[in-house]
Amino acid sequence: MNPSLRFDVSRAAAFVAPHEIEYQAAAVRAAHDLLHGRRGPGAEFTGWLDLPERYDREEFRRIQEAAARIRSDSDALVVIGIGGSYLGARATVEALGHAFHNLLPKDRRPGPQIFFAGKDLSPVYLTHLFEVLEGKEVSVNVVSKSGTTTEPAIAFRIFREYLERRYGKEGARRRIYATTDRRRGILKQVADAEGYESFVIPDEVGGRYSVLTAVGLLPIAAAGIDIAQLMAGAASAMAEYAEPDLAQNPCYQYAAARHALYRKGRTTELLVTYEPALRSTAEWWKQLFGESEGKDGKGIFPASVEFTTDLHSMGQYIQDGLRNLFETVVQVERPRADIAISGGDAGDGLGFLEGQTLDHVNRMALAGTLLAHTDGGVPNLLLTLPELTPYHYGQMIYFFEKACAISGYLLGVNPFDQPGVEAYKQNMYALLGKPGFEARRAELERRLNG
Amino acid sequence: MNPSLRFDVSRAAAFVAPHEIEYQAAAVRAAHDLLHGRRGPGAEFTGWLDLPERYDREEFRRIQEAAARIRSDSDALVVIGIGGSYLGARATVEALGHAFHNLLPKDRRPGPQIFFAGKDLSPVYLTHLFEVLEGKEVSVNVVSKSGTTTEPAIAFRIFREYLERRYGKEGARRRIYATTDRRRGILKQVADAEGYESFVIPDEVGGRYSVLTAVGLLPIAAAGIDIAQLMAGAASAMAEYAEPDLAQNPCYQYAAARHALYRKGRTTELLVTYEPALRSTAEWWKQLFGESEGKDGKGIFPASVEFTTDLHSMGQYIQDGLRNLFETVVQVERPRADIAISGGDAGDGLGFLEGQTLDHVNRMALAGTLLAHTDGGVPNLLLTLPELTPYHYGQMIYFFEKACAISGYLLGVNPFDQPGVEAYKQNMYALLGKPGFEARRAELERRLNG
Repeated sequence: MNPSLRFDVSRAAAFVAPHEIEYQAAAVRAAHDLLHGRRGPGAEFTGWLDLPERYDREEFRRIQEAAARIRSDSDALVVIGIGGSYLGARATVEALGHAFHNLLPKDRRPGPQIFFAGKDLSPVYLTHLFEVLEGKEVSVNVVSKSGTTTEPAIAFRIFREYLERRYGKEGARRRIYATTDRRRGILKQVADAEGYESFVIPDEVGGRYSVLTAVGLLPIAAAGIDIAQLMAGAASAMAEYAEPDLAQNPCYQYAAARHALYRKGRTTELLVTYEPALRSTAEWWKQLFGESEGKDGKGIFPASVEFTTDLHSMGQYIQDGLRNLFETVVQVERPRADIAISGGDAGDGLGFLEGQTLDHVNRMALAGTLLAHTDGGVPNLLLTLPELTPYHYGQMIYFFEKACAISGYLLGVNPFDQPGVEAYKQNMYALLGKPGFEARRAELERRLNG
Repeated sequence: MNPSLRFDVSRAAAFVAPHEIEYQAAAVRAAHDLLHGRRGPGAEFTGWLDLPERYDREEFRRIQEAAARIRSDSDALVVIGIGGSYLGARATVEALGHAFHNLLPKDRRPGPQIFFAGKDLSPVYLTHLFEVLEGKEVSVNVVSKSGTTTEPAIAFRIFREYLERRYGKEGARRRIYATTDRRRGILKQVADAEGYESFVIPDEVGGRYSVLTAVGLLPIAAAGIDIAQLMAGAASAMAEYAEPDLAQNPCYQYAAARHALYRKGRTTELLVTYEPALRSTAEWWKQLFGESEGKDGKGIFPASVEFTTDLHSMGQYIQDGLRNLFETVVQVERPRADIAISGGDAGDGLGFLEGQTLDHVNRMALAGTLLAHTDGGVPNLLLTLPELTPYHYGQMIYFFEKACAISGYLLGVNPFDQPGVEAYKQNMYALLGKPGFEARRAELERRLNG
């Protein structure tokens, strides 16, 4: 049997006493019952809870086939999506793939180059993207529940026209994959009318919880990553973290520990990684927690640092700045590759490292930093992955998803809505002259020019 | 004459009244006098203050020559450095270069591929880096004041051996560029003994202020960016922001506004950008402010978001979470490229955008978000760059550097030291068995195993 993740709250013992966790057992049990009984706020969006077991096997097979087709006929896959329709795929591809995936020669890459578009509104980025696509065989995966979100909708207009110009309408049809609503919405209509192969964003799974649906799985599989292992890891986590008893459930212990810290003024959490490959994983994590908890004037502010790099930038602040922080450290136990340090006494004061490996130095940096930051007054929570494999990464995805849901209920918010995201959109529509927004436009322009 | 940056505090008027800025005039003047009189804490590290005028022209010419040589004989330049020895170069190359610089075909790139190493301790990253370097002509720029910082020192051991194996000792000599102390330190010794061309990290310029020295300039120039324009912009900012009167100095207004916000509980500042190219600029900014101000148990916590991407992740929190935030928005007025939106009424509800450009939509997103977040209770400060050119980017570097120094003095800290960075290093050395650290090692191991 594959080992589990390990969560260790003991390094924060000077800040959170064991009883502070224990005393939350009843509240955690209540949150567990709300979640599993599908009776809590946002219950209609808890489809992710048993997704690793109940997912659509037939669609999963189609995803693998589509991914194989993309690998065989495309040099580049452009994934069009924003927020939850993009972060999970990007995080997973970067974490489990090659650090320079897109730069590898074609015969050394397990899949096409992966690019992301429709994730911003920069014309410079898009212009440059088209420049590097020159001469390449391109497929597109457009990911949007409604098809009307501005960023991906504009990008899709542009890419659809590009593909139809290059490959003709029929050729483009075979290179466009739509991940969207099962029935409704403009993207679904277009996909049906044009005959694009399409995949489902389930109604009961919100964007930030959607990485293990077709939203994440198609690009991840296209990049050559084993999505069956990813799902298997998530399924094992689903079984393990179904345990209602806080004392037996590391996932709930993480939720309880961070809630205890928040209640005593630790309002910013830093996700700490020691592998550059986990950079986008931190972005995924920030959306998951920030969007789930940041509402009603409260919530832990999620930030991230990439060590040891950022020990030479944010390290000073963490060691010695305002004490409203805590850190959650993601440790990877065994690296995929290692490098021995040689060279003897090169005069650089590192002779004592002779015969040690780079990974060993990295792990001692982690251990040393954990103690240094704790001594400096920053509580450290520690999550250990045995290895950065699809299986353990799937476990980690589920660990954080479930911890986030329980954490949200402990905080007294709906962890599955995002009412605040509309505000900027309404203003943007008005300023862009969308019909029906005339009064708002006039008011906003008055304020902007005032 | 080239236009200036514009700083606008008026959007935060509901949170910081004009008199809250004005009342700081005397304190700002005192900070100005400390800085310019070189009488404040850390005065020995204020060489950056007049660097844009007093820099060594002879060395500058050598930098341009070395960059030209690297462009002519190398497919890839590996820059070895960490913290201030890497962030400025990376930020500038990404901001002013092509979004996919390393992916462009050789004849479309203005310089070699640029890679960074010695910025972390990941063996996976380094292993992957060597894989993509296969078959390429490689040069190395090692950047380290002392030569003994663990991360770059290990990486340099490995790359030096690699180059000597590939090119022979003489060939490697011509491909290694050392940016280091003028006189002292192991890297300087090695450079002299081996005959590497070397460049100076001035004593009076700390790492996070060093982007406009050889530290940043050599990689930036090698990437094909006009460093003379970068320096010219910085020089114009130096003249403009030498003005002691707060009412006349936008740079000081930024320092005063953020200090006023901090004093009323706005303890986290988000640098907001709307261009993916500015991602690493935000990392540079975070080091600059975080390391300068985060000490003695205080300081604004610097974080960053990349819009509109992160409006679909961190947007919810910013709109509606804990109100201890403020935002500093970097706006670029004219994009380097633009794309017209066509396609008429495609059914995606975006027909009203017909004939508008992507940049226009991006700018309306910025304006709409600024108002939405302000309405949501988050003060917004606004810094506008006329264009993302080397000249204006140089202005921006200097704007932030000087604002940071003044801000640090207002806060009552030494903005130029980083005493907290040592703590993790000492622990790491001990755990790695460095001679002289035996007692500490025993204690740390007891704690880790306890």
